[in-house]
Amino acid sequence: MKNYITHDEWCIVENGFHPEHNEITESLMSLGNGRMGGRGNFEEKYSGKTLQGNYVAGVWFPDKTRVGWWKNGYPNYFAKVINACNWTGIDVEIEGEIIDLNTAKVHEFTRTLDMRTGVLERNCTIELSSGKTLKIHSQRFLSLVDDESGVIKYSITPLNFLGSAKVTVSLDGDVSNKDSNHGEKFWNEISKETGHGEGYLTLETKKSVWETVPTFQVCTGMKFDVYQAGEKIDCQTFPIKKEKYVANEFKINLEEGQEVSIIKFAANLSSENHSIAALGENTKAYVEKVAKKGFDAMLAEQKAAWAKKWEGNDIQIEGDVAAQQAIRFNIFQLQQTYTGEDARLNIGPKGFTGEKYGGVTYWDTEAYCLPFYLSTSEQKVARNLLVYRHNHLQKAIENAEKLGFFGGAALYPMVTMNGEECHNEWEITFEEIHRNGAIAYAIFDYIRYTGDSQYLAEYGLEVLTGISRFWAQRVNWSADKAKYVMLGVTGPNEYENNVNNNWYTNYLAVWCLKYTLESFESLKAQDQSRFDEIIGITSLDYSAETQKWQHIIENMYFPYDETRKVFLQQDGFLDKELLTVEDIASQRPINQKWSWDRILRSCFIKQADVLQGMYFFEEDFTVEELRRNFDFYEPMTVHESSLSPCVHVIQAAKLGIKEKAYEMYVRTARLDLDDYNNDTEDGLHITSMAGTWMSVVKGFGGLRVKNDKLSFEPFLPEQWQGFSFRTGFRGNSLNISIKGNTIEIENIFGNEISVLVYGKEVVVAKNSSTSVTY
Amino acid sequence: MKNYITHDEWCIVENGFHPEHNEITESLMSLGNGRMGGRGNFEEKYSGKTLQGNYVAGVWFPDKTRVGWWKNGYPNYFAKVINACNWTGIDVEIEGEIIDLNTAKVHEFTRTLDMRTGVLERNCTIELSSGKTLKIHSQRFLSLVDDESGVIKYSITPLNFLGSAKVTVSLDGDVSNKDSNHGEKFWNEISKETGHGEGYLTLETKKSVWETVPTFQVCTGMKFDVYQAGEKIDCQTFPIKKEKYVANEFKINLEEGQEVSIIKFAANLSSENHSIAALGENTKAYVEKVAKKGFDAMLAEQKAAWAKKWEGNDIQIEGDVAAQQAIRFNIFQLQQTYTGEDARLNIGPKGFTGEKYGGVTYWDTEAYCLPFYLSTSEQKVARNLLVYRHNHLQKAIENAEKLGFFGGAALYPMVTMNGEECHNEWEITFEEIHRNGAIAYAIFDYIRYTGDSQYLAEYGLEVLTGISRFWAQRVNWSADKAKYVMLGVTGPNEYENNVNNNWYTNYLAVWCLKYTLESFESLKAQDQSRFDEIIGITSLDYSAETQKWQHIIENMYFPYDETRKVFLQQDGFLDKELLTVEDIASQRPINQKWSWDRILRSCFIKQADVLQGMYFFEEDFTVEELRRNFDFYEPMTVHESSLSPCVHVIQAAKLGIKEKAYEMYVRTARLDLDDYNNDTEDGLHITSMAGTWMSVVKGFGGLRVKNDKLSFEPFLPEQWQGFSFRTGFRGNSLNISIKGNTIEIENIFGNEISVLVYGKEVVVAKNSSTSVTY
Repeated sequence: MKNYITHDEWCIVENGFHPEHNEITESLMSLGNGRMGGRGNFEEKYSGKTLQGNYVAGVWFPDKTRVGWWKNGYPNYFAKVINACNWTGIDVEIEGEIIDLNTAKVHEFTRTLDMRTGVLERNCTIELSSGKTLKIHSQRFLSLVDDESGVIKYSITPLNFLGSAKVTVSLDGDVSNKDSNHGEKFWNEISKETGHGEGYLTLETKKSVWETVPTFQVCTGMKFDVYQAGEKIDCQTFPIKKEKYVANEFKINLEEGQEVSIIKFAANLSSENHSIAALGENTKAYVEKVAKKGFDAMLAEQKAAWAKKWEGNDIQIEGDVAAQQAIRFNIFQLQQTYTGEDARLNIGPKGFTGEKYGGVTYWDTEAYCLPFYLSTSEQKVARNLLVYRHNHLQKAIENAEKLGFFGGAALYPMVTMNGEECHNEWEITFEEIHRNGAIAYAIFDYIRYTGDSQYLAEYGLEVLTGISRFWAQRVNWSADKAKYVMLGVTGPNEYENNVNNNWYTNYLAVWCLKYTLESFESLKAQDQSRFDEIIGITSLDYSAETQKWQHIIENMYFPYDETRKVFLQQDGFLDKELLTVEDIASQRPINQKWSWDRILRSCFIKQADVLQGMYFFEEDFTVEELRRNFDFYEPMTVHESSLSPCVHVIQAAKLGIKEKAYEMYVRTARLDLDDYNNDTEDGLHITSMAGTWMSVVKGFGGLRVKNDKLSFEPFLPEQWQGFSFRTGFRGNSLNISIKGNTIEIENIFGNEISVLVYGKEVVVAKNSSTSVTY
Repeated sequence: MKNYITHDEWCIVENGFHPEHNEITESLMSLGNGRMGGRGNFEEKYSGKTLQGNYVAGVWFPDKTRVGWWKNGYPNYFAKVINACNWTGIDVEIEGEIIDLNTAKVHEFTRTLDMRTGVLERNCTIELSSGKTLKIHSQRFLSLVDDESGVIKYSITPLNFLGSAKVTVSLDGDVSNKDSNHGEKFWNEISKETGHGEGYLTLETKKSVWETVPTFQVCTGMKFDVYQAGEKIDCQTFPIKKEKYVANEFKINLEEGQEVSIIKFAANLSSENHSIAALGENTKAYVEKVAKKGFDAMLAEQKAAWAKKWEGNDIQIEGDVAAQQAIRFNIFQLQQTYTGEDARLNIGPKGFTGEKYGGVTYWDTEAYCLPFYLSTSEQKVARNLLVYRHNHLQKAIENAEKLGFFGGAALYPMVTMNGEECHNEWEITFEEIHRNGAIAYAIFDYIRYTGDSQYLAEYGLEVLTGISRFWAQRVNWSADKAKYVMLGVTGPNEYENNVNNNWYTNYLAVWCLKYTLESFESLKAQDQSRFDEIIGITSLDYSAETQKWQHIIENMYFPYDETRKVFLQQDGFLDKELLTVEDIASQRPINQKWSWDRILRSCFIKQADVLQGMYFFEEDFTVEELRRNFDFYEPMTVHESSLSPCVHVIQAAKLGIKEKAYEMYVRTARLDLDDYNNDTEDGLHITSMAGTWMSVVKGFGGLRVKNDKLSFEPFLPEQWQGFSFRTGFRGNSLNISIKGNTIEIENIFGNEISVLVYGKEVVVAKNSSTSVTY
């Protein structure tokens, strides 16, 4: 655990340079605007520890799958979001010495990410080996408004000398991915061009051996101006062209105490959004447009755009600056990762903050991220996350066919970029099929929240049908049990592999069949022709198929312990030695200290599994049932997935186990800021940040939707004086404040609304607020 | 399936050149002498399909483990027997055209491996593009007597021209492994030297990053003579030296119809057997020695040595040439792979015939190969196989420690070269722990066969103790079942992974504890001080430890189906859809046609599992029990491991299911000769060849050891007129012939012997034979 980030309500601040943590800081200071993003690398050369990273959303490379022993059914490639052209470079050489914070003496240093505005700023004073001392001040942001562009204002001020500087402003496409096979680079150069104070570089991803996978072109452009003492000046620039690299170099005279600034406007346009023929021209026009707008105007727009986001987003925590900073950091990162403008994009586990896990989509999106966007963003944002999966339905059907399923059965991939499976561990790729259920559940969750039941007819039911067909084939009849069973699965708890009858997966499958059947019936009543269209995907006879589904619904096997009256995570769970986390305190984390087989045969749980199911379907269970299962499983849960604690916060909150809820919350909130798991240097845990948000809003706030109404069952952690959060709901925008035993509901926008507080209906008039003491 | 190898009782013959099958033929024509070996590559350049392979026993490289996702406990490297210096090269250029059977017209062609002598011979007539026609005749063998050497006689005879030839006789160490990571080469050059008609090349395996792994040096030497019209002639030779390559080149005039022969003597001496300082000198002396002996004398010795081997080995089958050829091929390959001279060596799955599976040791050795060597070779051969594991005991203890075991518990590796685990699939590496039991069983099997109970005190009990300690820690008490259980294992049937209570493994574990306890007691009675020494390996209290063992022995859980009265392969087996192989005829082999998850949740069995256990411990079960289990499991077994059918032959034979026994036998016997599995090009299935031998001797011959006596319960497959086999037993050498309902036992060597035939005692006097009709 690290503790070098200054606690501040709105900013992430590194006070004093910590080169030993530089890769962590680079992750924490990442910027994004949904369309592009990158790590908080320095603009100028840095020879110390650094992980360069710039990413263009939707641009990836199919890197050959690497395995020890090939298993039938493995995918051919792993889609990776790739490190793209570094557009941030501004190198400065002062009389033979290149500015490099790794070699210079750093006298003063602050690096600040202002979450109110999405601006990364650095102020430092350094001394070169010649004794020359200068100030560097840089500001950088990725525009939310012009979301294919970024801008930098980079200034130096000589403090004790006059002389000259050589400045190189570059676009560098000669980059690689840290985790590529054999260090292979993924880009080819297509063209490059330089002009006076400008440069353009078009790169194309390498043609892969997988012929169906497209290549992508990205044109990166830049234009820069130079200012001295606040005046724009005209410097003679010299073009430099190298393989996959263009730059402009110029010399400038430095006066002691006089600031020299370079304002660099850059844009990344990709062939995902522009025709290849027009890519170069469009990039030039784009750079021209933003340069014309100018730094100050862009910054003003940026501030306004972020302010608007925060209006619908913010969570305030009173009396705990560290918690306040953490929750805002999580919200900020989620918002800059996915803006919901483009249904072809999704949320990678590291967002734009690193390349680990390939930037691909997991079930995290549906199970953890969706509720965040439902509450905090326009409806279309969550809807686009759902449409993303609808767009991949055909690929999911093909994926299922590869594994022997038929008749339109769909298995969504564990990890994907374009709908094709990319994971390559059999126990996950082929067996962690509960992801299919989470995708179905998200449709239900979205409609429950938004009331947009039209989505079902338009898109949702096609997805549900494919998924239900999968479940109906994936179970088999056990003559021995005289029940349907589901063999060979891996549940959310990945510390069990290839188990039979994972309770969570079985429950999800049956729920899914039921929900699909109900949705069929309601659609049939409303829109016979659309119903016919969906059913008609295959020639299977509707009534035979749905009778089979009904039979499964009525005859599914669920492992259960009659003695303890708890659901069993899977068959044979009680054969394990039932220890608790306290018994193995010194041996944690077990994923670092134990061999894999030992983990597998232990009772220890990586992340909520039965409890995850009871969270999804809480209305099916009594509080006493929940308590028995929580008391049984919670002591065995090691939470070695960052996605685990949030569910425990929500369940503990519901059960009134306040200390446990808070303890779990703390574990997730500052995961990256304090580098709990020693891996923030690889990038941030973006999807688990949504879990942190859920911990506050669904856990402490107790937010649910019940019978088309928002419902709250809040409790205030003792460590806080109060907290408040914003949430949207069907045209209303509410601010919810909890203080003591009182909840105040402010109806900021929208008509009168009726909500539930601990089950009691509360009406809040338009533009007014109501307090309820519970 | 291929059918181009001529059926012949003693030879493997390719009549007419089959370039499309050349890699298969190279595998089939492999030569070995226990110390070195290689594939049946042509001596001269060949530009067609070929897999070059020369191997030096005990010389390997630790290639970095390649995995998709690392799991804690994986080994760092995979030990690979590496492709070594190609010492066979003799290239011939005739007036500008290099002889190459891929470009020349091949008019006549025979390639023959004579199994009586271990000589590979080739006769062919080829036409060059110039129209020049010539005969090639080559003979090559690896000497059994001088087992660090090989010799080649390579002759060409111009048929329609006179002119000159340029001949290059080489040692080429610039070789690579087909399956190396990134095509990396594993050898560095240490030194090279050429002289008149001779050359020496010393190579060293690359230093690996694993500091504890040694490098190996191999010096390869050659000396050659040239003969024309039967007369040795002196040619002027020109040395050629390149990186990792030495050669001698000479010119010779060719006369029409006059044979020119090159006799090339070569030796491979490794630092495993010679000091590095003396390696070069010893190689020179060795080459000198064999060259002096000369080709004809070496060939005569070779014939005598193989004849002696066949005396104790041969199986004769009357009325079925294909079966006769097949069984001899299997015996031949086993004998040339492992001679039992060196306890540091073992039997790789491909022997000296290919590089697949890295040439490392599996449990195949103990479970399948040991009985072959027990019957057919001197006692020391089998004993050295056991000592090999004793030598690795400390590594097995360290291996177990890596996985969290303690107190001297030993887990032998799944695959190994030097005792360290090399496999990297968690479900096998960490879970296919039944291998540990096979290693214990082999000790029992060896003593039962040889009566060498002294082995137990000397070596065996130390190994048994380590293994039993492992089992005692690997089980856990299930409060639910009030029994010991063994969770998370993979049985011999690798089409199930990570199952609980694999019947075979549980049975083996309990047997092992029992046998170790019994062995303790008998040693204690005989040799208290040695007993103390073995027990004293750790400070654990003997009586507490053995009481725990006893408790496990008495309280182990074994899955059982009360309805069918069969042992269940593992927990939950009856939840599967119980189909038979006939139901999926068109979908086989399932390992090529089904995805891995589908295989796992099906009932289909890769190789005998419960039936393997009932084979090992047949005296524990009634014939009716065996029949019930055979009838249950056999129809579900797909035999997609080459090690499977032999156990089914033995069990079917015992149950009198003659057709099934023969059907299974056919499946194994010509596996490589007819390339059943389309993979003979990678090398031969050496260890499964021992299974074929078992099929005949233990299956059709019904050979067992019962109460220190050899026992036979033969039956003659209807397809044969008769068969006979040789077997040694405690100083006797017997020839057993079965014809009709009569068994003839010939006591070739040794004193009067009493054997059992269908349970009835039969005494066979010294140097006489007795027939029994049953």
